[in-house]
Amino acid sequence: MERLKIGITQGDVNGVGYEVILKTFADAEMMELCTPVIYGSPKVAAYHRKAIDSQTNFTIVDSAADAQPDRLNLVNCNADEVKVELGTESAEGGLAAYQALERAVDEYKKGLVDAIVTAPICKNTIHSDKFPFPGHTEYFEHELGEGRKALMILMNESLRVALVTVHEPISKVASLITTENIKEKITILNDSLKNDFGIEIPRIAVLALNPHAGDGGLLGREEQEQIIPAIKEMSAEGVKCFGPFPADGFFGSADYKKFDAVLAMYHDQGIIPLKTVDMEGGVNFTAGLPVVRTSPGHGTAFDLAGKGVASEHPFRQAVYAAIDIVRSRRNEELIHRNPLRKLYYDRRDDSDKLKLDNPED
Amino acid sequence: MERLKIGITQGDVNGVGYEVILKTFADAEMMELCTPVIYGSPKVAAYHRKAIDSQTNFTIVDSAADAQPDRLNLVNCNADEVKVELGTESAEGGLAAYQALERAVDEYKKGLVDAIVTAPICKNTIHSDKFPFPGHTEYFEHELGEGRKALMILMNESLRVALVTVHEPISKVASLITTENIKEKITILNDSLKNDFGIEIPRIAVLALNPHAGDGGLLGREEQEQIIPAIKEMSAEGVKCFGPFPADGFFGSADYKKFDAVLAMYHDQGIIPLKTVDMEGGVNFTAGLPVVRTSPGHGTAFDLAGKGVASEHPFRQAVYAAIDIVRSRRNEELIHRNPLRKLYYDRRDDSDKLKLDNPED
Repeated sequence: MERLKIGITQGDVNGVGYEVILKTFADAEMMELCTPVIYGSPKVAAYHRKAIDSQTNFTIVDSAADAQPDRLNLVNCNADEVKVELGTESAEGGLAAYQALERAVDEYKKGLVDAIVTAPICKNTIHSDKFPFPGHTEYFEHELGEGRKALMILMNESLRVALVTVHEPISKVASLITTENIKEKITILNDSLKNDFGIEIPRIAVLALNPHAGDGGLLGREEQEQIIPAIKEMSAEGVKCFGPFPADGFFGSADYKKFDAVLAMYHDQGIIPLKTVDMEGGVNFTAGLPVVRTSPGHGTAFDLAGKGVASEHPFRQAVYAAIDIVRSRRNEELIHRNPLRKLYYDRRDDSDKLKLDNPED
Repeated sequence: MERLKIGITQGDVNGVGYEVILKTFADAEMMELCTPVIYGSPKVAAYHRKAIDSQTNFTIVDSAADAQPDRLNLVNCNADEVKVELGTESAEGGLAAYQALERAVDEYKKGLVDAIVTAPICKNTIHSDKFPFPGHTEYFEHELGEGRKALMILMNESLRVALVTVHEPISKVASLITTENIKEKITILNDSLKNDFGIEIPRIAVLALNPHAGDGGLLGREEQEQIIPAIKEMSAEGVKCFGPFPADGFFGSADYKKFDAVLAMYHDQGIIPLKTVDMEGGVNFTAGLPVVRTSPGHGTAFDLAGKGVASEHPFRQAVYAAIDIVRSRRNEELIHRNPLRKLYYDRRDDSDKLKLDNPED
C-alpha cells in the first residue's frame, strides 16, 4: 500500500501542538503508516523538543516534495524568529500558526501532500484580515472547498457527531435550524459515511433542537416545522435517517450506539456528550470537502504547554483518521470506476439469456 | 430518629410509575427509613402489581393521618374507575395523575406528610386548566412555593446540576440569561447546598451559554454582559461561584468533580452530560421551596410499561434524597436555633475577660 504524505500544521506555538506531534512520531511505526511533513518552524520545534525532553528527531526540508520516508520532515514556514511564550496568547504565535496553514494549503494544492492534520490554533490570535474565520473548518472550506460546504464531524471510538450549526451564539441557533440546512448536512454526512468511512448504508440519528423534542410544540416548533420535514424528505430519497430524538434521553440511553452518526443541532449539544464519554476529546474531521483534514478534538491547552503531560492520543487518532479516510476515498473511487454494466432481460426476446449491454447503449 | 412520612404520587397510570414504587418498597428495609403513603388508586396499583408479578402488598387508608408504619399505605384519590391502557397517552391517565398530585399537596398543607416524591407524569395528558404547567417543578412552585422561586436540581452520585432555564425553546433561552436571573439561581442553589445537603461552603461552577464561552465576544456576548457580572456580584457577597466555563470542556475534563454543583444555562446543556454519565437519569429535586419534592429523573417510559423491566433504582434514590433533605433541613434549623451569643472584649474595660453578652442586648 502506498505510503501517504500527511501534512501537519504546527498550530499555536505556545500550546501543546509540538508536544503531541513529537510524541506521536516518537513511535517509529507511525512512519510506516505515512510520511509526515510538519509545516512549522525548526527553532520552535527544537524549543519544545527540549522543553518536554523528547528524543524525537526531525529533518528540515524545503518542501513536501523533498520529504523523506521514515523521517519526521519539517518545512520552515516562519521567515522571522518566532518567540515562544509558553501558555500565552501572542500575536507572533497567531501569525506563525497562520503561515504554517497557508503553506500547507499551498502544497496541498500542488499535490505534494495527501491530507492535512492540524494542531490546535488560538482563535483570538490567529484572527486577522487574512484569517477572518471562527476556526479551521471554515478556513479549509474557503481555501480548499472548491465551492463545496464543509461539515464538522467529531468522532471517538463510540460516537460520530456532526453539527448543523457550529460556532454560533445560542441566540442565533434556532433561526439557522431550517429544513434546507438540515437536509444539506444530512446529505454531506451520508455521503461522508459512505465514501470516507466505507459504510454501505449509513444510519443517521437526528437530534431535536428543543427540550423533550419540543413536547409536541409546547416547547418550540422547529421540530415540526423544520426538522421532521427534513428527515421525511431525506428518507424519501433513500437516506436512512431517524429522529428527531430528545438529546438528553438519546445520550442517556446510549442509543447512539445504534447509529453510524448523530446529527446535533448546535455545538454544545453534540460536543458535550462526545467529550463526556471520551475525556480526551476524540478527532475532528472536516467532511464534505475534496481535501481530507483532521485534527485532535482538544484545543491549545495553554495551561499544559511545555510540561510534557499532554496526551498525544487524540493527535495520533487524527493521523490515523486522515490516513483511513484518504484510503477509503480512493478505495470507493476504485470500486466504482468500472461498475458492472446493467444486466437485463430483453422482453422482446424469447430467450432467457441475460443481456450484458444496456439497451440504451 | 423519627420515621418520616413520605407522600408518593402515582404519576401517569399507563407508565412505569407503579412498577418502580412497588419494586422500591418490595424491600422491607425501606419501611424502616420512612412510612410511605401513595396517592393513587388501589385498583390501578393492583393492576400493575399483577402485570409485573410483584409480591409487594399495600394497605388502603383514608389519609396519611391513618398511615401505618411498616406498611405501604395507599390513599385513594381517583373517585371514578380509572382505565389503564399500558403505554398509551390517555386523558383518564392525565386526570388520575392530577388528582393524586392535588391530594398529596392538600395533605402536605395539613402537615400529614413530610415530603413528596412524584412518579413521572405525561405532560401532554395532564395539561389542563387546572394544570397549565410544563412540569411538576412549576406546579409545586405555584401550589407550595409561598412566593418563593423553585430551582430544578438534577443529581446522581457524581454530579448535581441546576438549570437557569428549564422548559424553554432554544429560541428563547438567550433572552432569559440575565444577570438577575443567574444571581437568583445561584442564591437558591447556594442556600440549598447549605441547608439541604449540609455543605458548609459550597463551590458552584457556572457554565457559559455560548460555544467556547463566547470566545471573547466573537460567539455571543451573554458571557461578558450577563454571566460574568452575576458571578462577580455573587462572589462579592461571599458565594464561592466560578466560571463561566465552556460546557464541553468542563464535562470533558470531568471538572465537575471539583464542585458541589453546576449551574447550566439551559435544559440540554445540563441534562445531556448528567444522563451521559448516569444512564438511569438520577434524581430530580425541586430546590428553593418550603416543601421537599423529589422524583426519579426518568419519564413515564411508556415503551416499558407493564413489562417488569424498569429499574427502580432512580425512584429509590429519589426517596432516599427526600429523606436526607428533610433531615438535613431539620438539622440545620436545630443547630442554628440557639447560636452562641457573640463573644467580645469590652474595650472600655481593662479586664481581659470575654463578655458573653452582646453590648446591644
